[in-house]
Amino acid sequence: MHAKTIEWTGRHVRLLDQTLLPLTTKFLAIRDEKAMWEAIKMLRVRGAPAIGVAAAYGLYLGVARQEPATLTALRRRAHHVADYLYGSRPTAVNLGWAMRRCVEMLDSLDKATRPEDALARLLAEAQAIEAEDVETCDLIGENGAAELAHVKTILTHCNTGALATAGAGTALSVIFALARQNPELYVFVDETRPLLQGARLTAWELQRACVRMLLITDNSAGAVMQQGEADAVIVGADRIAANGDTANKIGTMPLAIVANYYKVPFYVAAPLSTFDPTLLSGDEIPIELRGAEEVVRFGGTQVAPRGTKVFAPAFDVTPAKLIAGIVTEVGVLKPPYKRSIKAALG
Amino acid sequence: MHAKTIEWTGRHVRLLDQTLLPLTTKFLAIRDEKAMWEAIKMLRVRGAPAIGVAAAYGLYLGVARQEPATLTALRRRAHHVADYLYGSRPTAVNLGWAMRRCVEMLDSLDKATRPEDALARLLAEAQAIEAEDVETCDLIGENGAAELAHVKTILTHCNTGALATAGAGTALSVIFALARQNPELYVFVDETRPLLQGARLTAWELQRACVRMLLITDNSAGAVMQQGEADAVIVGADRIAANGDTANKIGTMPLAIVANYYKVPFYVAAPLSTFDPTLLSGDEIPIELRGAEEVVRFGGTQVAPRGTKVFAPAFDVTPAKLIAGIVTEVGVLKPPYKRSIKAALG
Repeated sequence: MHAKTIEWTGRHVRLLDQTLLPLTTKFLAIRDEKAMWEAIKMLRVRGAPAIGVAAAYGLYLGVARQEPATLTALRRRAHHVADYLYGSRPTAVNLGWAMRRCVEMLDSLDKATRPEDALARLLAEAQAIEAEDVETCDLIGENGAAELAHVKTILTHCNTGALATAGAGTALSVIFALARQNPELYVFVDETRPLLQGARLTAWELQRACVRMLLITDNSAGAVMQQGEADAVIVGADRIAANGDTANKIGTMPLAIVANYYKVPFYVAAPLSTFDPTLLSGDEIPIELRGAEEVVRFGGTQVAPRGTKVFAPAFDVTPAKLIAGIVTEVGVLKPPYKRSIKAALG
Repeated sequence: MHAKTIEWTGRHVRLLDQTLLPLTTKFLAIRDEKAMWEAIKMLRVRGAPAIGVAAAYGLYLGVARQEPATLTALRRRAHHVADYLYGSRPTAVNLGWAMRRCVEMLDSLDKATRPEDALARLLAEAQAIEAEDVETCDLIGENGAAELAHVKTILTHCNTGALATAGAGTALSVIFALARQNPELYVFVDETRPLLQGARLTAWELQRACVRMLLITDNSAGAVMQQGEADAVIVGADRIAANGDTANKIGTMPLAIVANYYKVPFYVAAPLSTFDPTLLSGDEIPIELRGAEEVVRFGGTQVAPRGTKVFAPAFDVTPAKLIAGIVTEVGVLKPPYKRSIKAALG
């Protein structure tokens, strides 16, 4: 139902070029590590899990292309290609993680392994990374759809779908699952300033999946809830502290406050990898500040006077007490979160 | 301190061309009724009070240009020019009001009045309309600054300044007055999607007046308040019901809810002409819906997939119980509003 943004065809990787969205849907055929390096670097593929999967396939393509004659040559080549791909976007956590996982798998092989078998194992590892991500997304979708089976309308913020993962996404996976249960489901999509991931990406995903929706400015979410038009709100998460405080895209926390004011249940959907039990509360989550450019310019147009100073936090922290439940691949965590998070991670 | 967007120079009207903001500050010399018709029609001047003042001067210019030889000819000419100017933007309430006021003044003159004296009275009427608006803005500024004398930082939404009135504005008049009292005042300016009046107009006004400010996306207002960075919030109003429920630019109501959550006092500033005692509560205020274009396109760039449907209310209604005070030209009204509004209007 959702778009498949990255896919192994048996010979190459079929990759959706996200830089052309929402107006053009173009898939690239990625046939070697150089093309994958370029695709990651130029943000044609983005979202931590999706980047990890893309790089793992890129590593396989880069090693296979050289047809190494010995296991030693293959391992040397793999280290080289992994380093090369890692350089495309060194701050992406899942990229380094995927490269290490693949290289360590090769290093752990019995030295009698034939190079063609090692190569097959490398492809299988990339497919495993993809399959695990797909399964996590599916489980989040299932668990969320069971919890929210009664809702007829739902509101979401930012992009948390197939464009950020190899699967159906997190919060958007729940929405896709709900729409399968109830084709009449209606989704309100926050445009999500400043980078408009809702307007550009979530609206594209829902339109493509034929899920009914209305795009709104972030300012209109309050009016939607005041008029009783949203039965629930669901968002993703960038980082969740041990007590359930959740860092997510800027605008999430005021949305949670308004949802609570109008008694609309507010949910977070995230894989267990998003939880950071070393952070006791949201106070310890560092908030990245972005530059003025994203706010004062749009689509090449200057929208504020020259020299305007800007305060542009990338994230905000939603207090745990405003969250009705956290949907994960192992179930829906409920308050008190300190206990339920500990149990889920342990 | 604030910009003077409309001004009678003694020979013509000096009018700021708002369509070129925020990048170009250009004043037009309006010398006849045709140029004023064009300026109102093309939104070079906007904001209900400012349009009323502009049209009154346009009426004088159009009558004076013909030098009518008799009072009868002058009255006939005035009716003709008033009808003509009214056609530039018939939905603007203050435009019709200003035209009626001027024409009725001429009609009420003694028939022995010389045409040159009637002409002088017509100019005086336009100047009176302007002076009354300026005074109302000044009184709102004074009353608000006395109420909020202690604040070091303040947050505002949309544009409520000299670009919408002949004076210093409403909420922005309070901010200008506060900045005169305390040059260290810091203002957070919501960009105010979809039409970005905050980024385009309020940022321009504050920059020009050398008031310190930070532009934020509407999504960031919550983070500002969570971090204790805003001592108060002040906004304007489009319509206020008898119980204090206030319709204002979309995004105002969620801002009020979040301000109350973080115990930041939330104020409204508006002239008495904004109150509509025939509306018992906010439920009776009709909410205008806008077209999709303002949300899906920006600065000539399409930001959502083609065919995306949009829900775009122009206003929302803030419940009176979230409002700490309503700053008017006769003082700061306090809860219970039913009583204080009745007293102020009666």
